Amino acid sequence: MNPEKFNGSIKGLKVLSPAVIKKIKAIVGPDYCSANKEDLAAHSFDATALVFLPDCVVFPESTEEISSILKLAQEYEFCVTARGTGSGLTGGSLPVNGGLVLVTSRMNRILKIDTDNLMAIAEPGVVTGDLHKAVEKQGLFYPPDPASSEYSTLGGNVAECAGGPRAVKYGVTRDYVLGLEVVIPDGRIIRTGVQTVKGVVGYDLTRLIVGSEGTLGVITQIILRLLPMPEAVRTLTATFADMEKAAETVSEIIRNGIIPRTVEYMDQVSIRCVENYLKIGLPKDAGAMLLLEVDGRKEEVDQAVTRLKSLCIGKGAVHVTSATTPEEVSRLWLARRSINPALFQYAPHKINEDIVVPRSKIPLMVRRIKQLIEQFDMIIATFGHAGDGNIHVNIMLDKNNPEQKRKADQIVEILFDETLMLGGTLSGEHGVGITKRSYIDKEVGPHEMALMKGIKSVFDPKGLMNPGKIFPEG
Amino acid sequence: MNPEKFNGSIKGLKVLSPAVIKKIKAIVGPDYCSANKEDLAAHSFDATALVFLPDCVVFPESTEEISSILKLAQEYEFCVTARGTGSGLTGGSLPVNGGLVLVTSRMNRILKIDTDNLMAIAEPGVVTGDLHKAVEKQGLFYPPDPASSEYSTLGGNVAECAGGPRAVKYGVTRDYVLGLEVVIPDGRIIRTGVQTVKGVVGYDLTRLIVGSEGTLGVITQIILRLLPMPEAVRTLTATFADMEKAAETVSEIIRNGIIPRTVEYMDQVSIRCVENYLKIGLPKDAGAMLLLEVDGRKEEVDQAVTRLKSLCIGKGAVHVTSATTPEEVSRLWLARRSINPALFQYAPHKINEDIVVPRSKIPLMVRRIKQLIEQFDMIIATFGHAGDGNIHVNIMLDKNNPEQKRKADQIVEILFDETLMLGGTLSGEHGVGITKRSYIDKEVGPHEMALMKGIKSVFDPKGLMNPGKIFPEG
Repeated sequence: MNPEKFNGSIKGLKVLSPAVIKKIKAIVGPDYCSANKEDLAAHSFDATALVFLPDCVVFPESTEEISSILKLAQEYEFCVTARGTGSGLTGGSLPVNGGLVLVTSRMNRILKIDTDNLMAIAEPGVVTGDLHKAVEKQGLFYPPDPASSEYSTLGGNVAECAGGPRAVKYGVTRDYVLGLEVVIPDGRIIRTGVQTVKGVVGYDLTRLIVGSEGTLGVITQIILRLLPMPEAVRTLTATFADMEKAAETVSEIIRNGIIPRTVEYMDQVSIRCVENYLKIGLPKDAGAMLLLEVDGRKEEVDQAVTRLKSLCIGKGAVHVTSATTPEEVSRLWLARRSINPALFQYAPHKINEDIVVPRSKIPLMVRRIKQLIEQFDMIIATFGHAGDGNIHVNIMLDKNNPEQKRKADQIVEILFDETLMLGGTLSGEHGVGITKRSYIDKEVGPHEMALMKGIKSVFDPKGLMNPGKIFPEG
Repeated sequence: MNPEKFNGSIKGLKVLSPAVIKKIKAIVGPDYCSANKEDLAAHSFDATALVFLPDCVVFPESTEEISSILKLAQEYEFCVTARGTGSGLTGGSLPVNGGLVLVTSRMNRILKIDTDNLMAIAEPGVVTGDLHKAVEKQGLFYPPDPASSEYSTLGGNVAECAGGPRAVKYGVTRDYVLGLEVVIPDGRIIRTGVQTVKGVVGYDLTRLIVGSEGTLGVITQIILRLLPMPEAVRTLTATFADMEKAAETVSEIIRNGIIPRTVEYMDQVSIRCVENYLKIGLPKDAGAMLLLEVDGRKEEVDQAVTRLKSLCIGKGAVHVTSATTPEEVSRLWLARRSINPALFQYAPHKINEDIVVPRSKIPLMVRRIKQLIEQFDMIIATFGHAGDGNIHVNIMLDKNNPEQKRKADQIVEILFDETLMLGGTLSGEHGVGITKRSYIDKEVGPHEMALMKGIKSVFDPKGLMNPGKIFPEG
C-alpha cells in the first residue's frame, strides 16, 4: 500500500465522520458499510495500480438506498465515487479525494431480456461477460466486448463508454444504451432515454451520461439494445513483413466492402514478447500480425474468409491461417490476449495509452512510434484495434527510475500532439479519468471545456460526485 | 398567409430594428439579408403548415459570419432561429417569436469524402439526398434516409435526429454523427467529437447537440461516419389479412436473425387510400401490407429473399411479390411514398404523430387505434417503420371544424398516454418542436426537465436561440 499524493484535492470536501458513517449504515444495514482498513484498502485501487484510500465503503442494494446515500452526501458535503470492479485503466473509479466509495456489486441483476424487442434491462453491477452469456443463451448478442469483459461491469462500461475489438463492425457501448436510470448527486432519481431505438423527445441525457465517467450521477439501471446472435463466426490471422503492409491490407479489406467484426493487430515488439512468453510458434521475424474475425450467415462467412485470405495474400501477407475448430480459435486469440501480461517481461511498469487516429493514418503513427523508440531508447509495444484506428501504445518502464519516467512523460506528450495533428483523439475507449486529465486541454478547447464544466454544475453544483476526474486541475 | 397566434412568446426579446438589420447586412453583404415582406413570408412556415413571420432573414456563407451574427444577437437581444429547407414536421424551424431566421442554404458544400476512413465532412445546408448521391458515386453509403431526404438538409436532420425506413438495420442520424462545429449563442465557435468512431474525451457534446432542435446553437459543420455501399438490395412486399399477422411476421423475421434494411407497413386505411389515388392494383381487402428490403452481398440477399418469402407465407401472408428490376422496385415503393399526398382525399388537414412502441406492442397499438376510429368516428391512417416500432399515426380532419378539432385533440391525448403505457415514446424521428411541447411533460419528468433547462441555460443563458421549442410554456 503506497497511496499516491493527489495534487488536485477539492477544497471544502469533508472527511466522513463516524456519525455520518453511522447514518449510512442505517440506510444499507451494518453489514454493507465499512470503514475497516482492509475494506478501504480493497477498494482503493484499479487497473492503473494507483492507490487512494476512501474514508468509507458502501454496498447498496437498490436505487432507493443510493438516493438516500446521495442525499446524505449533499447534507454533509462528502464526496462519492461509484465503482464496479475497478478494472478501469484511467483511474475513473479511484476515490482521489477520499470520501465514500459506492460499490455496485450487489446491484447485479439482469432484470429483463426481451427477445421480441431485442432489448435487455440490467443493473450496473452485472459483469459484462455474464450479460453476454445470458443473452447468448436466448440467441441474442450484446456486441460491446472490452478486453475486461469477464470481470468489468456494465455500469463501468457505460460510465467509460467501453469499446473492444468488435467495435469496428458494431460500435461501442454508447451505441447500445437506449436509456438509463440514474441517481443525480442531490439524490433525485431520473430516467433518461427510451426502450426503443428511435426516440427524440428532449435533450439526449442518455448519451450525455454515457462516457461521463461517473461525474454526473450514479447509474442504477441500464436499458440495452441487443442484436440477433450471428449464425457463424470465423477467425483468421495474417502476418506481414511490416506494419505498412498490414495497414494497407486493412484499408483494402474495407474498400472491398467487408467489415470484419474484429481487425486486431500486433506489432513486432508485441509478437516477439508474446512468443517469448507463450512459445506457440509466432513468427518472430514478422513485422505485424492481423487477427480478423467475420460473422454472419454460415455461407456468407465462408465466402468472406476466402475473400479475406486472397486479399491478405494479394497485399503481401507472409502467412495466413484460418481456424476451423473452437480450439484453434482460442489459440489464435491467446496471443492477442496475452500481450498485456507478456509485456511485463520487459519492465515492471507500463504506461498504456489508448489513442485513435483515422484508420489510414495508422502506418504514419506506427512509423512515428518507431522513431520514438530509437530516439528515447525505450521499449514501446503497440497493438490494438486497427479496424477503427484505435492503437494501444504501451511504454514499458520502471517508474522508480526517474530517467525512464521523464522519458516516458516526454514520449506521451509527443504521442498525444502527433495523434491530434493526424485528426485523432487521446482516448478511444479508456476515458480521461485522472491519468489523462492533464492532457485534456490539448484536445478539448477552452469554450468546449467551459460548456462541459457548466453541464457538470447543472448536475452537481457542489462537485461531490467523483471529483478530480476528467477536468484539469485548477 | 394566416399567422397563428403563438401563446408562448418569450418576454424581453426585442424586435429587430432597422439599425440592427443594417449591421447584419454589413456582415453578410446587402444581398444576403432581407426584411422584405416576400422574403419573410417565404421563410415563415414549414411542413406543419403553421406560419410565423420573422423580422428579418439572413443567408450567411460561413461559420465566421454566423459567429458575428450571433454576437450581434447577444448585444441587441434578438432571437435567432436556424433553418434548412423547412421540411420539419413539428415546427422546429419556425420563428415563433419573430426575430431573425438564419437560412443555411449557402452553406451547402460537401467538404470531404474520405473513402479510406469512411467519413465525410459537410456543411449544414447540404441536401441529404445530395450527400447520398455524392458518397454513392464513391462506393460509400450514408444510411439515414428520412422521407424528406430529397429536400431536407443535413443540418436539419442532425438538429432533429432524423430517422427513416433504414433505421431498423442502420440506426438514425445520431449513429452517424461523429463530430460537429457549432456556433453557440454567444457567438463562440466550438468543435465537438472526433473524426473516428471511437472517442471518449470529456462529455459527449456531439450527441447532446444532435436532436436538440436548434436550441443550443447553429450547426456549421458535420463530420459523418459512412459505410461501404452494400453490393445488392432486394425489395419485396407481402400482404396480410390483418395487422396482427403482419406484426407477428415482423417479429418472426427478426427472431430468425434477419434484420432487413427496411420493414415498412401500411394499414388498411392507407392501402385503400393509396389505391384510390394511384389505381395500381393494391389489394383493398388486405388488412396490412409489409414492404421489406434486404441488402448485403448478392448471394446473401438472394438467400434472404427466399427465406423472407417463406417466413411471410408461413405466417399467413396472402400475397408475396419480390421486385427483380429497378422499375418494379420503384413501383413497390410508390405506394409507400404516396400515402402522405393520398391521405388528403379524406380531409383537408391531418395531424401526423410519430409514436414509437416496442416492436412487439405494434398489434396492441394498432388494435387500440381501431377502437379510437370507431369511438370518435374519425379517419385515422397508420403506416410507418414496423421494424423499429415507429408508427406514423395520421388523424385526418378539417381544422376549421371545431368538433373534429376537439376530437382529434382528444385522440392525440389518448394515443400519447397509451404509447407511454406500452413503454414507448412520443416521437421517434420528428422531434418535439412546438407541436408536441405541450405533451412533453407526459414523457419527461420534472427532474429530467430541470436538467434539460439547466443545460439550455449553460449554452444560452439569454434564451435567444430558437426560443419556444421543446420546453413547455411557462
